[in-house]
Amino acid sequence: MPRYRLTLEYDGTNFVGWQLQKNGLSVQEAVEKAIYAFTGQPIRVHGSSRTDSGVHARGQTMHCDLPKFYDSYTICRALNAFLRPHPVSVLQADLVDDTFHARFSARGKRYCYTIFNRRSPPTIDRHFAWYIPKKLDWLSMQQAALCFLGEHDFTSFRDSACQGRSPIKVIHRFDVLWQDPFLTMTVEGRSFLHHQIRNMVGTLALIGKGHWTIDDLHQALLAKDRRAGGPTAPAQGLCLEKVFYD
Amino acid sequence: MPRYRLTLEYDGTNFVGWQLQKNGLSVQEAVEKAIYAFTGQPIRVHGSSRTDSGVHARGQTMHCDLPKFYDSYTICRALNAFLRPHPVSVLQADLVDDTFHARFSARGKRYCYTIFNRRSPPTIDRHFAWYIPKKLDWLSMQQAALCFLGEHDFTSFRDSACQGRSPIKVIHRFDVLWQDPFLTMTVEGRSFLHHQIRNMVGTLALIGKGHWTIDDLHQALLAKDRRAGGPTAPAQGLCLEKVFYD
Repeated sequence: MPRYRLTLEYDGTNFVGWQLQKNGLSVQEAVEKAIYAFTGQPIRVHGSSRTDSGVHARGQTMHCDLPKFYDSYTICRALNAFLRPHPVSVLQADLVDDTFHARFSARGKRYCYTIFNRRSPPTIDRHFAWYIPKKLDWLSMQQAALCFLGEHDFTSFRDSACQGRSPIKVIHRFDVLWQDPFLTMTVEGRSFLHHQIRNMVGTLALIGKGHWTIDDLHQALLAKDRRAGGPTAPAQGLCLEKVFYD
Repeated sequence: MPRYRLTLEYDGTNFVGWQLQKNGLSVQEAVEKAIYAFTGQPIRVHGSSRTDSGVHARGQTMHCDLPKFYDSYTICRALNAFLRPHPVSVLQADLVDDTFHARFSARGKRYCYTIFNRRSPPTIDRHFAWYIPKKLDWLSMQQAALCFLGEHDFTSFRDSACQGRSPIKVIHRFDVLWQDPFLTMTVEGRSFLHHQIRNMVGTLALIGKGHWTIDDLHQALLAKDRRAGGPTAPAQGLCLEKVFYD
């Protein structure tokens, strides 16, 4: 059976997350139902990342084995028709080698996290950003973000339920950009621990508010204890932008 | 009673429009209820523009007379608290002269219209753009938009129910910008006829699709007959960006 890699965009607001759950509709379930409607067969799909409930994607990837060959345009068109009215869109379908695995073949991922930093509450952007009314010192946050670059033990920034084998991760990029009223953080790495980005962002917000210094962040990183890290930033500010493959 | 000018942002998706209606919640009603909760008095508000159902605003303005003086911060904070959970936000409150009128004192308005031009349907942006899957020739649209600049009789682009006294209007700016997958049009003028912008955009889309030439647009403008103009672009792509005052 030919294997395909699909690139997906979704508004995660009303999903229980990527992964199948009994308590509500997941993106995975919506996609599997669309594939079933298209092919007439129950087919399991494998995502590159289990995005949490409320987290969005502009470039999630997944793979699945289809019963026969289709051209890319036919797959996108058919699945997008069957996915309606759910806010999930298939951007691309590529035929891949059958050793390809959306998660294990990934060489890296790019996430964006958006803070909405204005006194008045957001309206148009309310589901796609973390609203912080107090003016943040974004230059300090930009400087502090550099502490995360490189290889570190991220125990202080991993969820206590995280099942990753090692807490050692490498961050290749952590940009902090101010475009009034948005503070956008772009983070790239080979892979991430559970809630790692949201915990790093929650900690940077403490620095932006003046509650923590950069030295506090250093100490938290060295403590290797989740209780030493900052709070978890809310899901709706996070978006999986791109998954990298060779 | 001191008069205030309020600047508002809203997500128009679930409102029946700016103006009070019997069949659903309008932005005006949401704001008047918040003012009532704040001041304890029923106070009428006057908007600069009656945005249609589904149309958004990042800079709608309105005025109202409050029973006493408040500082700007207090007004914004209180109204934003009472406006929850509706997606309407008070960005600014300015004390103005009691001859000021949000609509009649306006010197001009800026609207943006967004087309989402990509084969795959929009997800995150679905309520804030007009989805056109077919690739548009945006350079032709940019050139055609220049025909609207200056003073013209816009009868062919006004809604048949429009009650404006004169069909003669002046367009000062009509930019067409492509930022994949968004085609954004920025239009400025002193004032506009009912549905004028949506009708101009619907006509430009005919040119982008190759169904019309620029000469067809010229002919439509000269015809001074609504039946000669193109279709009305959907509401959700339109946003009132700014109202200009002296």
